Amino acid sequence: MSALVTEGFSFETLHTDGHARVGTLTTPHAVVETPTFMPVGTLGTVKSLSMEEVAATGAGIVLGNTYHLWLRPGAEVVAGLGGLHRFSRWPRAMLTDSGGFQVFSLSGLRKVDDEGVSFRSHLDGSPRRLTPEESIRVQSLLASDIAMVLDECPPGDADRPTIERAMKRSTAWAHRCLRAPRAARQALFGIVQGGIHEDLRLAHLGDLGDLGFDGLALGGLSVGESVEDMHRVLAAVAHQMPSAKPRYLMGVGTPRDLLVGSLLGIDMFDCVLPTRNARNGQALTWTGRVNIKQARHKLDDGPIDPRCDGPCCNGEGGRYTRGYLRHLYVCDEILAARVISQHNLWFFGALMRAMREAIKARRAEAFVHETLRIFSQGDEVGVSGPKARSVVVSGFKAG
Amino acid sequence: MSALVTEGFSFETLHTDGHARVGTLTTPHAVVETPTFMPVGTLGTVKSLSMEEVAATGAGIVLGNTYHLWLRPGAEVVAGLGGLHRFSRWPRAMLTDSGGFQVFSLSGLRKVDDEGVSFRSHLDGSPRRLTPEESIRVQSLLASDIAMVLDECPPGDADRPTIERAMKRSTAWAHRCLRAPRAARQALFGIVQGGIHEDLRLAHLGDLGDLGFDGLALGGLSVGESVEDMHRVLAAVAHQMPSAKPRYLMGVGTPRDLLVGSLLGIDMFDCVLPTRNARNGQALTWTGRVNIKQARHKLDDGPIDPRCDGPCCNGEGGRYTRGYLRHLYVCDEILAARVISQHNLWFFGALMRAMREAIKARRAEAFVHETLRIFSQGDEVGVSGPKARSVVVSGFKAG
Repeated sequence: MSALVTEGFSFETLHTDGHARVGTLTTPHAVVETPTFMPVGTLGTVKSLSMEEVAATGAGIVLGNTYHLWLRPGAEVVAGLGGLHRFSRWPRAMLTDSGGFQVFSLSGLRKVDDEGVSFRSHLDGSPRRLTPEESIRVQSLLASDIAMVLDECPPGDADRPTIERAMKRSTAWAHRCLRAPRAARQALFGIVQGGIHEDLRLAHLGDLGDLGFDGLALGGLSVGESVEDMHRVLAAVAHQMPSAKPRYLMGVGTPRDLLVGSLLGIDMFDCVLPTRNARNGQALTWTGRVNIKQARHKLDDGPIDPRCDGPCCNGEGGRYTRGYLRHLYVCDEILAARVISQHNLWFFGALMRAMREAIKARRAEAFVHETLRIFSQGDEVGVSGPKARSVVVSGFKAG
Repeated sequence: MSALVTEGFSFETLHTDGHARVGTLTTPHAVVETPTFMPVGTLGTVKSLSMEEVAATGAGIVLGNTYHLWLRPGAEVVAGLGGLHRFSRWPRAMLTDSGGFQVFSLSGLRKVDDEGVSFRSHLDGSPRRLTPEESIRVQSLLASDIAMVLDECPPGDADRPTIERAMKRSTAWAHRCLRAPRAARQALFGIVQGGIHEDLRLAHLGDLGDLGFDGLALGGLSVGESVEDMHRVLAAVAHQMPSAKPRYLMGVGTPRDLLVGSLLGIDMFDCVLPTRNARNGQALTWTGRVNIKQARHKLDDGPIDPRCDGPCCNGEGGRYTRGYLRHLYVCDEILAARVISQHNLWFFGALMRAMREAIKARRAEAFVHETLRIFSQGDEVGVSGPKARSVVVSGFKAG
């Protein structure tokens, strides 16, 4: 039961539990069990970590940012050094975004027209031009397993007419991306927009669903809307996406969002949260957030998370204690960023493994409820704050 | 043939070649083959690296900075978390300095008297007082294998009377350090001062040589004097230090200095050079320095050093290419500091291993000549610049 169109790819659903499903996404570089979390390797490196460490967390697929790699070192340089896999020493699957989201969020003085978008580099102000064809050309040079279409990303607070115009333009760009030549054995995913409007989401899904993409993504979520709005949209849309193809929720999210998204039928996630928060001293655990800089950790010789079986909490060389990590963090030592990043990605990997097991056992909803209950009872505020429980419940019900 | 006085320690000379020797330094945590290079773990971490990575470079002993650890997190905190070994997850030997060098080089408004030195913390300006007894107390709390006496460190350009006064005070402090209670199974090394004056060095060595230290160090070198002066002093003094005890050249140095120092009879070295230079993008190789930021590395898919057998140049996961490392460095990615630091320490470890092999084969001088000749013929300037060759030759001859 394979339903992808590009050679070397297939997606198979192995287990379902309500809208949730466990599947395998086969790409030329890896077979990835879904639902899965993709660590973000913006510039060809998952910040502070070696790719061996990323692989050890169970990650089967890493996301590279086309915008960043296009500007530095340049797609031709990456291609000259063997493509993004070889360049970054990542042997498993690699997905690249289109560059569009960063153009719309990072660059200055951008100007969109039907043909593409002109902008200035956030690094040096130099003028650049991104079109659907250029995005695919760059992604072909990067030679990721999965490329994404260029879409127009309206701001999180855009009004409905603005979102509708962006959808229309994104649909036209999606067609152009499909027609553009791309690397052999490189899949292409479409991106469904529509803001927090369920009808617009479903309409755009209708426009893109049958175009022959290898998978479909939801873009424009986690861009400032409330958690309730995001979960409401997911509950209305995720399970309506073609069931034979992988469903990817872009730029999301918190541990809670991963669980709720999985429950509602999403297969793939990516987010900078585990690595970015780590560099700010925030560790994520089965019982909530740990802010390592707090004075109460000063003499604590326990691990970040006693429930964690990862190398930072439970490794052969002895655990990293909270006291030691606090010291490293206070002193701006790089090792603090490394250890907490590795821990957080380990936790995200373990969370997704546990979710897959729960789906296989047909107890996904109970697992999510129980896990979020413990998150919100941790001795610090829960991973997603005090609203976690009620939001999840409404998220379930809407599904 | 064991000649150390503290329980748990011994030093044995196994091979000699001229003044050079291969020995084993036994401490409660490790048996270390000498001559050896000690990576610097200032704040309980060798910057950017895990202790597993440090161990993999062959390092058997790491240096911790008492001054830094005393200020942050505080010696009592380290002791409360099990001492410096357990705190920092370093299972092998650990040496701590006295804190004196940093007081004299980093802190503001210091005032020395016969009793000790008052100064203000370089972090927050708070007043502090370091005495021989306090230094040993702090080092006992850190529980290193080897503690160093507190000495007065005159500036590199101090005149002869200033140096003589510092020597006299340092001798008195050395006696007090010996009398101060310290941790069980913690060795104590004395420090010979005397600037670049051979007669003063030998006089101070005479003052300290018979006091019952477990080893002796040369301090106050590599503090601004010329390389010629340093090598001249080493040639005059190193082989006069008690042969039954380890000889430690503090804060040194370049690959050339390690080879020349070993040839002249030194057993132990430490320096921030390999890790600090790495964070500035400078890799050290068998054919000289590589400044990774140079544009010529942009498309270079070769390793840092084709002659290196380390994991960065030749590892299972595939080498880190110069092109990739240049990209990481230009983008300020932490992984650049990690990989180049690991490579540099690997190179220093390999260099010392090769030196030990050369001593065993009784071809130490030829090995040093040949190695430095290749350094200085690298396609970048040699590790120690164009003077490397002539300096080394004069260094040999003086020995």
